[in-house]
Amino acid sequence: MKMNSSLLLSIDDLLELYIKKFENVIFKSENTIANKPIYYFISNEGKRIRPLLLLAACNMFEGNIDIAVNPAFGIQMFHNFTLVHDDIIDNSDIRRGRPAVHKKYSVNNAIISGDLMMIYAYDYLSKVEETQLREVITSFNDTAGKIIEGQQMDIDFETRMDVDEKEYIKMIGYKTSVLLAESLRIGSVVANTSDVNKELIYNFGLNLGLSFQIKDDWLDTFGTGEKFGKKIGGDILQNKKTMLFVKAWELANTRTKEEIKALMNHEDKNEKIERMMNIYNELGVDDLIESQMTEYFQKGLRYLEKIAIEEERKLPLLNFAHKIYNRDF
Amino acid sequence: MKMNSSLLLSIDDLLELYIKKFENVIFKSENTIANKPIYYFISNEGKRIRPLLLLAACNMFEGNIDIAVNPAFGIQMFHNFTLVHDDIIDNSDIRRGRPAVHKKYSVNNAIISGDLMMIYAYDYLSKVEETQLREVITSFNDTAGKIIEGQQMDIDFETRMDVDEKEYIKMIGYKTSVLLAESLRIGSVVANTSDVNKELIYNFGLNLGLSFQIKDDWLDTFGTGEKFGKKIGGDILQNKKTMLFVKAWELANTRTKEEIKALMNHEDKNEKIERMMNIYNELGVDDLIESQMTEYFQKGLRYLEKIAIEEERKLPLLNFAHKIYNRDF
Repeated sequence: MKMNSSLLLSIDDLLELYIKKFENVIFKSENTIANKPIYYFISNEGKRIRPLLLLAACNMFEGNIDIAVNPAFGIQMFHNFTLVHDDIIDNSDIRRGRPAVHKKYSVNNAIISGDLMMIYAYDYLSKVEETQLREVITSFNDTAGKIIEGQQMDIDFETRMDVDEKEYIKMIGYKTSVLLAESLRIGSVVANTSDVNKELIYNFGLNLGLSFQIKDDWLDTFGTGEKFGKKIGGDILQNKKTMLFVKAWELANTRTKEEIKALMNHEDKNEKIERMMNIYNELGVDDLIESQMTEYFQKGLRYLEKIAIEEERKLPLLNFAHKIYNRDF
Repeated sequence: MKMNSSLLLSIDDLLELYIKKFENVIFKSENTIANKPIYYFISNEGKRIRPLLLLAACNMFEGNIDIAVNPAFGIQMFHNFTLVHDDIIDNSDIRRGRPAVHKKYSVNNAIISGDLMMIYAYDYLSKVEETQLREVITSFNDTAGKIIEGQQMDIDFETRMDVDEKEYIKMIGYKTSVLLAESLRIGSVVANTSDVNKELIYNFGLNLGLSFQIKDDWLDTFGTGEKFGKKIGGDILQNKKTMLFVKAWELANTRTKEEIKALMNHEDKNEKIERMMNIYNELGVDDLIESQMTEYFQKGLRYLEKIAIEEERKLPLLNFAHKIYNRDF
């Protein structure tokens, strides 16, 4: 469907449009050897939060959705690339309820197809108007560099105990939030909106991203694991420094700290998960986390409020943000 | 030094200019954790063939070298990224005479820093004139996709015996030649030369690249290993389908084919290398390879000849091509 740019679309409309546009691409890419793992991965897409944020931002600012779908697909490709390489690095065998690429194929295939995904990402990110190209590429490169640095911090934190909240927030800010913020920003660049609006929507995304990642941490330990598509307790097994861990370490007395330390090298996997969960429960970390999630979410919404356009145009994005915030997977 | 664009520079001048420009970048990047392996890698650069080709092409067509150094660094970064990931995939422990990144640091560090190198590559490739940006990015993306496909083919060939010359040429064309050709092409784009010239220089690069890779195959088996900076016989140990292997398989009788097959799983490393070298020598593969190298090299030069500019301006690139062709490392 061709869009009248001022038409306000729901997230479901945008999703349908996005999927229709890329079915061809997806099936075309099945053919070559290096593309097989990519096809495997994108044939089982996740929530598509990032492309939908990009499209919703573009639509909110009355931009051309027919153009925005390209960088939307590029952003999703880049996100997928990070997941494929992350799963190798974290030794995570399950992704979106199926074997991770390095398990289904091989580590070498996963390295190579992740690399190829990044190249495809740049390819689709570049399919914007001539006047927008420089801004999209420059801004995206800056974000991409931060994401890799965030991944590196995440790994380095695994062998540390004393990661404080500030460091943790910086890490998830880089690893997760900047890509959500960047998605919104690129959608706004395609819509040729003002620099003030671009900054407001970027900051909305940053805070939404923090609340999103803190929830992700929570779900990894306290989720049901069914819709989540990952194994519950993975973060605990890997000694990941999540918001749960950071808060627990902050609140723990000397005896509990010793117990946590001892658990880092505990061999019985189920027992390790159970005992860490008990510590989290005893320290009441659960409630603290929830109030933090709410705080970042509210802070994000205040940036959205400040954008000077008709309130009605913000509704799809606002509803989507609430849906992300309230998700149970 | 600021350049008068019509001044004809030698390869040594260009190398000096390139190194001066990026010393700052190199030392600045040492600071963050994810950048350390990158610093380690680029503090021991190789022959810098690709950036020098880019600069020489730009200079030949009287382009602005001050701009061309950016994509030149980008191309080299991309090349380095492929080497870092390739060394993981091939399980090669030595690169440029030092431990490979995944040995010096870890496989995870090598994956991440390779990813970051690719992002830096796009960053520097984008630092061209507004009017050149689209062409540089689009053309480079196409090349980058081919390189990854070439790497995938290279891996797939390891478990096959009957790779014929045509398949082999396609594989090295993708894996190696297109980046040499693309370097020359981007240098020409920065110089705003004609499309005819861009195509001629690209084809010069493709053929130079084929002769370059065939020589690389030869050096991996028959080189001295000192200047080469890799272990001699690595290709043989890994069952790589090199031009030596492809030719040997083509010429071998049934008995020799059986011997080659048996050697694929031979456990004694030194004996495996020695026996394959004997087979290559018996079949006279050495001479065949040399005539092929010469053929592609000459074919490449004919494209350079066709470029309608003063012959004098071609000299630095022509001399450099000869130097690459005659190298012993």
